[in-house]
Amino acid sequence: MAFQNICIIGAGLIGSSIARAAKCYLLQSKISIYDSNETVRSRLRTLALADAVPDDMSAAVGDADFVILCSPVGTYADIAKAIAPTLKAGAIVSDVGSVKASAIAAIAPHLPKNVHLVPAHPVAGTENSGPDAGFASLFQKRWCIITPLADTDAQAVEKVSHFWQSLGSMVEIMDAEHHDLVLAVTSHVPHLIAYTIVGTASDLEDVTNSEVIKFSAGGFRDFTRIAASDPTMWRDVFLNNKMAVLEVLQRLTEDISMLQRAIRWDEGDKLHALFTRTRAIRRQIIDAGQDTDADDFGRPHGEG
Amino acid sequence: MAFQNICIIGAGLIGSSIARAAKCYLLQSKISIYDSNETVRSRLRTLALADAVPDDMSAAVGDADFVILCSPVGTYADIAKAIAPTLKAGAIVSDVGSVKASAIAAIAPHLPKNVHLVPAHPVAGTENSGPDAGFASLFQKRWCIITPLADTDAQAVEKVSHFWQSLGSMVEIMDAEHHDLVLAVTSHVPHLIAYTIVGTASDLEDVTNSEVIKFSAGGFRDFTRIAASDPTMWRDVFLNNKMAVLEVLQRLTEDISMLQRAIRWDEGDKLHALFTRTRAIRRQIIDAGQDTDADDFGRPHGEG
Repeated sequence: MAFQNICIIGAGLIGSSIARAAKCYLLQSKISIYDSNETVRSRLRTLALADAVPDDMSAAVGDADFVILCSPVGTYADIAKAIAPTLKAGAIVSDVGSVKASAIAAIAPHLPKNVHLVPAHPVAGTENSGPDAGFASLFQKRWCIITPLADTDAQAVEKVSHFWQSLGSMVEIMDAEHHDLVLAVTSHVPHLIAYTIVGTASDLEDVTNSEVIKFSAGGFRDFTRIAASDPTMWRDVFLNNKMAVLEVLQRLTEDISMLQRAIRWDEGDKLHALFTRTRAIRRQIIDAGQDTDADDFGRPHGEG
Repeated sequence: MAFQNICIIGAGLIGSSIARAAKCYLLQSKISIYDSNETVRSRLRTLALADAVPDDMSAAVGDADFVILCSPVGTYADIAKAIAPTLKAGAIVSDVGSVKASAIAAIAPHLPKNVHLVPAHPVAGTENSGPDAGFASLFQKRWCIITPLADTDAQAVEKVSHFWQSLGSMVEIMDAEHHDLVLAVTSHVPHLIAYTIVGTASDLEDVTNSEVIKFSAGGFRDFTRIAASDPTMWRDVFLNNKMAVLEVLQRLTEDISMLQRAIRWDEGDKLHALFTRTRAIRRQIIDAGQDTDADDFGRPHGEG
């Protein structure tokens, strides 16, 4: 079931975490990792994250029975085109992109017929990026969504599921379109709103930036964590999941207008009813092990 | 400088944290705490949070040289009216409300002339509420904003500043209107948006609640923490800081529309520019000690 030669393309938070996790949990696999940035490649060699850090992407791919794209979604088409001629027959190509329909559209047309495409998305991450930001336990107890195409080989899906389970993840299978809608709600729109509100706050003429920063413990700072995520990756996410993001944003702005009106017209009951409902959802997320119930995210309040 | 008899009215997260902190850091003060809920009063006695837990609010206030309102802002006018006759001459009345102009409007008219009103707002809190949720270090290294009126006695302001510094806070003085605008940005609107997005997500027909919960690690769960805060307190905040909240919300929805349009028209540069700018603000908040830079808020990813 295990892969012999795994090739990771792109050594950011996710790519470098996969390399670290594979080293811990997949002792029988040989790992090579490629990054288009020469400085990153040299850093990878210093960190000794993989068995090989080749300078040439096609060469990196030649031996692999599992190639996993971990670069921004906007780079997928070019990478697929570049590696297609050197892919081994029977190899599985996968990715970790936060959008899946566009990822498939970018990769699938370029792959030879004797290669399997099994798109995947580990729903895990932190606000940090680059090869130093990764860590082996990132995927533990987090979900990985696999979005096979209608004609994807079942055994290839099985192998990729097994790979993610070996890294500590739970696997869910769904189609790419549904994935993109679910993630628009649970990830893309929250990120967009976080980015927006941080921007809005820093643009106010009557409130200084230093006030925004000083008094951020009132709630604002929670938004800034995810608004510190990688700008290029997130630009590509929004451009590549346009319809689902716009649909959810539209619903959200309608709901904001409704609350805006409730505030203007002193309709306290409407506010109270919503605020009570949302509490229950928080409880369910904690019960499902997807967040910690440490007070205030366990932030230190001590004198230390 | 220290108060002899401190009376806390309302034993939620903030009131019970003040009681605990006073016990640790203000050894010379006698603390009494009152809550209108009988079950809470009995819990307070079990927890032994104060020197006295009287059943009668006016009696609780009689001896106090410092009375601090820690109940929802919507209750202030009634409390001020009720305690006014028994307040000691020269006593200082304060509060911890998240809105200040309305707090002043609710309290000031009822107080006798020989009593000082010094409104304050400790910018600290967690998503939990009730007398068991408090802890003594909650105010450590957090800001407390004091919003004196034009004619407030300077020595009374000095004494309240000293009180908060004794509990570990840094103190900032500003006028009530400016406070309400700053907090609309850094706290009230972020809470409203968090509540809204959690509601929007749970209303979608095509995405199940169990999917929202499972895949919340993609960003959504950060919003749910503050959307788990006390519904009554927050209802009162929005109804009592109406103009500032509506003004900031209006700007925010304009900014959302701008990004919505950028996504629709593939204007990646606009998105990238904003996402880069917001990263810098995150860095400043961490440098200012108002948040932790632990990856992913230090959430556990391990197997444990």
